[in-house]
Amino acid sequence: MAERLAFTKMHGLGNDFMVVDAVSRPLPVADWLTPKRIQGWADRHFGIGFDQLLLIEPPNGTNADFRYRVFNADGGEVEQCGNGARCFARFVAERGLTDRRDIRVETAGGPIVLHLTDDDRVRVDMGRPRFAPEAIPFKPPITASGSPYTLMLSGKPGGLDQVTLEAVSMGNPHAVVQVEELGRFPVEAVGAALESHPAFPRRVNVGFVKQHRPDHIGLRVFERGAGETLACGTGACAAVAAGIHAARLESPCRVDLRGGALSIDWSGRDEDSLFMTGPATFVFDGEVAVDATE
Amino acid sequence: MAERLAFTKMHGLGNDFMVVDAVSRPLPVADWLTPKRIQGWADRHFGIGFDQLLLIEPPNGTNADFRYRVFNADGGEVEQCGNGARCFARFVAERGLTDRRDIRVETAGGPIVLHLTDDDRVRVDMGRPRFAPEAIPFKPPITASGSPYTLMLSGKPGGLDQVTLEAVSMGNPHAVVQVEELGRFPVEAVGAALESHPAFPRRVNVGFVKQHRPDHIGLRVFERGAGETLACGTGACAAVAAGIHAARLESPCRVDLRGGALSIDWSGRDEDSLFMTGPATFVFDGEVAVDATE
Repeated sequence: MAERLAFTKMHGLGNDFMVVDAVSRPLPVADWLTPKRIQGWADRHFGIGFDQLLLIEPPNGTNADFRYRVFNADGGEVEQCGNGARCFARFVAERGLTDRRDIRVETAGGPIVLHLTDDDRVRVDMGRPRFAPEAIPFKPPITASGSPYTLMLSGKPGGLDQVTLEAVSMGNPHAVVQVEELGRFPVEAVGAALESHPAFPRRVNVGFVKQHRPDHIGLRVFERGAGETLACGTGACAAVAAGIHAARLESPCRVDLRGGALSIDWSGRDEDSLFMTGPATFVFDGEVAVDATE
Repeated sequence: MAERLAFTKMHGLGNDFMVVDAVSRPLPVADWLTPKRIQGWADRHFGIGFDQLLLIEPPNGTNADFRYRVFNADGGEVEQCGNGARCFARFVAERGLTDRRDIRVETAGGPIVLHLTDDDRVRVDMGRPRFAPEAIPFKPPITASGSPYTLMLSGKPGGLDQVTLEAVSMGNPHAVVQVEELGRFPVEAVGAALESHPAFPRRVNVGFVKQHRPDHIGLRVFERGAGETLACGTGACAAVAAGIHAARLESPCRVDLRGGALSIDWSGRDEDSLFMTGPATFVFDGEVAVDATE
């Protein structure tokens, strides 16, 4: 028996999502959200094609407006995704699920508040940046006297035998590297070498930054386990946090990623959250057959 | 002003298509099928994501049942696509646009007839294989005494300094190479070396074949200008045509591609067409906003 499941395809700077609204109408099939189905839908040739599935549910006994769940293409549930949170907020606003401009959301990582700006962008509280090496985790060289840190690389990836970086946690580990010229920089080679460097015991995402002005940078990001991506929200946050922390960047700062631009603002105080503002785009509405017997 | 355009996503062995039905309902926007729009829709992160757009129109003054047009992801119109023809035939049958099992179609490459089998596969007349070197075009080494031909490779791609092949035209040029072990064969390196080899003045698609039985082969295809793909219909035809021509394969022959299986049948006579039978799969139905002012 085949039921039909409605969905909406959206993207935030090219990071793309299958959005399923389980508030407006109940899901057609019980126990339908299996890893096997998600993997099939996520496939870009045999399925719908997306980076993550976003599920919008009623709140689960709290005073939040919605519950927001994120599933990776392999079917596993994850805590958060900044680009996805923007798509979620724009979806519930445009489809009339709420008339609030500040939307309170339950996530697997805890409660968050999303703000819709007057120009239809979404401002997301990304939490507090942390710079202590043990928070990242990062094991600096014994000879290091403080940030920035210079790490030796083996095998000369991209022709380099060392790289100088700052280390930041945005809930996940980031290394931030300043470069002279972004377009031709060997992002894959140097990113992969740092990702697996013993100084980062839980591996690391690597952002390569070209500073244009104190309020404008270009950024390419090598994501842990994925390689270079179009737009990494936490990578943009980490790059600006490191720059404000070192007093070389100002808030708000524009970040040009391959997939488009984000704006990051942060007071620079340890106790304050950092905020990311950016676009969310509707692509199309769809319906897919779900075989309940599978 | 935004109109909404309905479409259906389908695939044939992972070669995937946005199918637009301009028979059941008129298109919402005049002059809407611009290369810029097709490029945007084809993008797998910012758009719908597909290899080709298939447009189904009423026949244009002939006694065919439909006119069938194919647009590449760059927006350019092309003559034919075997995987797309199967999706087209299954679409018009399942959506009730015809009750024929033999569907007469106008294409940019001339009229074709598509046959729906009892198990919902589609059999496509792929035309006559041609083996004459000038038909491909192929310039064999002066020392060659006939097929198969041995070509010297420069730079040892994949560790090889020569490769032995047969050459076939299925309307487009193909080289067919027999290999011992398909999984680990350096398809990209050797495919790229043959694609740009001076013996193929209009470049070439390269199929790598592992023969399991006279009626069953495995095949990986390096497509001209695209690299290795999931399923190349004309590549499967060329591999079996070469094998039947050399009396090492029988008709019908099953071809296992990375994206799934096709069946090829051919009498072996120069004057007869070769036929390809394979599946076509519905993925989802969608609607996309089309801004008429763009």
